[in-house]
Amino acid sequence: MGGEVMEALIARALGGDVRAIAKLISLVENESSYTDTIMKAIYPRSGRAHVVGVTGSPGAGKSTLVDKLVLTLRDKGLKVGVVAVDPSSPFTGGAILGDRLRMQRHSTDPNVFIRSMGTRGSLGGIARATFEAALILDACGYDVVFIETVGVGQSEVDIVRVSDTVCLVLVPGMGDSIQLMKAGIMEIADIFVVNKADREGVNRLVTEVEMVLDMSIPKEAAWRPPVHKTVAETGEGVAELAESLKAHRNFIKSSSSGRDRAYRRLEWEVEEILRREIAKVVEDRLREVLSDPAVLEDLYARRRDPYTLAGEILCEIFNSNSENCGRDKR
Amino acid sequence: MGGEVMEALIARALGGDVRAIAKLISLVENESSYTDTIMKAIYPRSGRAHVVGVTGSPGAGKSTLVDKLVLTLRDKGLKVGVVAVDPSSPFTGGAILGDRLRMQRHSTDPNVFIRSMGTRGSLGGIARATFEAALILDACGYDVVFIETVGVGQSEVDIVRVSDTVCLVLVPGMGDSIQLMKAGIMEIADIFVVNKADREGVNRLVTEVEMVLDMSIPKEAAWRPPVHKTVAETGEGVAELAESLKAHRNFIKSSSSGRDRAYRRLEWEVEEILRREIAKVVEDRLREVLSDPAVLEDLYARRRDPYTLAGEILCEIFNSNSENCGRDKR
Repeated sequence: MGGEVMEALIARALGGDVRAIAKLISLVENESSYTDTIMKAIYPRSGRAHVVGVTGSPGAGKSTLVDKLVLTLRDKGLKVGVVAVDPSSPFTGGAILGDRLRMQRHSTDPNVFIRSMGTRGSLGGIARATFEAALILDACGYDVVFIETVGVGQSEVDIVRVSDTVCLVLVPGMGDSIQLMKAGIMEIADIFVVNKADREGVNRLVTEVEMVLDMSIPKEAAWRPPVHKTVAETGEGVAELAESLKAHRNFIKSSSSGRDRAYRRLEWEVEEILRREIAKVVEDRLREVLSDPAVLEDLYARRRDPYTLAGEILCEIFNSNSENCGRDKR
Repeated sequence: MGGEVMEALIARALGGDVRAIAKLISLVENESSYTDTIMKAIYPRSGRAHVVGVTGSPGAGKSTLVDKLVLTLRDKGLKVGVVAVDPSSPFTGGAILGDRLRMQRHSTDPNVFIRSMGTRGSLGGIARATFEAALILDACGYDVVFIETVGVGQSEVDIVRVSDTVCLVLVPGMGDSIQLMKAGIMEIADIFVVNKADREGVNRLVTEVEMVLDMSIPKEAAWRPPVHKTVAETGEGVAELAESLKAHRNFIKSSSSGRDRAYRRLEWEVEEILRREIAKVVEDRLREVLSDPAVLEDLYARRRDPYTLAGEILCEIFNSNSENCGRDKR
């Protein structure tokens, strides 16, 4: 693809062309060499959307809930994007199937964009690609972008961390509250949702969550996460949840904590970009070094050790006067 | 710690001092600045132990099985090390508890060394620390080193991949065979164990595994993974499994596939060392850059973008005439 073709593609995407947007997200997801160009063009136009992370155990009804939220926000005339991620599955099959089904539901609505992210590459890579997809949707005019994870765990925490608002979905009868406290995800939730609230044990779960919040949120905190009851299937409680999302958005916009969060996100992003670029350099150099069969033979025979070899490669990659190189030379 | 103190510590460990060995493993696990020194001293003395990875679903009875294998190998007069890893839990609580219980059982035996690895840092970090702990035990005179994971998943695949022999433990009635084929772990198993073989469904599971092997292992393959039935609780089948481990060890020693596997492991190790060292350099430099509040302010206000900033940092870190830097300067 030539530079002009890419410029035209980006311009079409920024103008709202759905196919161009999908193409940009694919290029970024596949870590194409255009990622840098795309993101440099996208970034200055981003920062307007409300990015909402939705996480919780498998089976908690997250995708149904997001679907209903999408309908609610569409009724208000907002453009909505959804990025669904399944970092735990090595296959995109499930995600793609879900994607298709959901696409059908919204296929007549050009103001809803739904995208599933696969799990090529590292977990860090998915988190980054998800965030970049959200930035692209943001810059291309979507007012609210949902980032929806399939499971809950460290990788999901990393993924939703880039959201303005993190929504944690629980269901009664799954021993969730204890599990989630262990996973450290309760600390990052801005809004709690107890879904399937027509089931037994709802009130007990709500009480448990409130108790945990009593213990963990200081009384003087500017935002205490609300706990919503919803029945995603019927839409019960979804309108109130949508209001709550908006309230949290207003809160972070008007408080310093929103800027602090954006700062952490930016730090993380710069670090991820650096990590990716450096990994490329390392892999290239390593492939080169190891293409000499004598290198592995020497390591295998213990005539040389991997630590010394790595030190030598570092010296070559980095400025030879860098501290790191000096240390490995001693 | 001075260089001489460290040298003395390493010498004591290589001489078989259990406390010194434990100390070295702790230093490596915590990514202390001595890691490089320790591993450079350890490496030339390693390569003699048989490293056996044991993985499988939680509840498959892996730790009981490993315990029984330890007893069997001790009866043969071998020194045995065990490194237990739980990458899925953010807490080492469970692992430490299990560790204590198991330590008690073997506490009277100085020729058994058991160690649990926590989950500080990244998954790659755990895999590396686990491998380094196994190398330390290897160099310090342990004949067989078990690497035991708590669950089964991509991270466990990474962890056991560094073993000479990978042992996959299944149990009847858990729908394991299908799950494991999905997780891609059957491809890396050298020996299958159907544990809790006193349960219903044993023979069906054995048949299922054999069928998968029929489909995936070429007829002319030099090693077809055997499928063992064990009851770890009673020790039934454990002696045969121990024989099988030894047979696989002899096979890899006498065939080119063993060397190929060691080569892949060395490649992976050099890459992990590089990744770790470079991450340190990146984090240091990033912290420095971001200590100027104007940098984040500019990014937040969209006056600058993270991609351009990352490009600038790369130019500083790398030799300015490197290809990478040139690309980011254009």
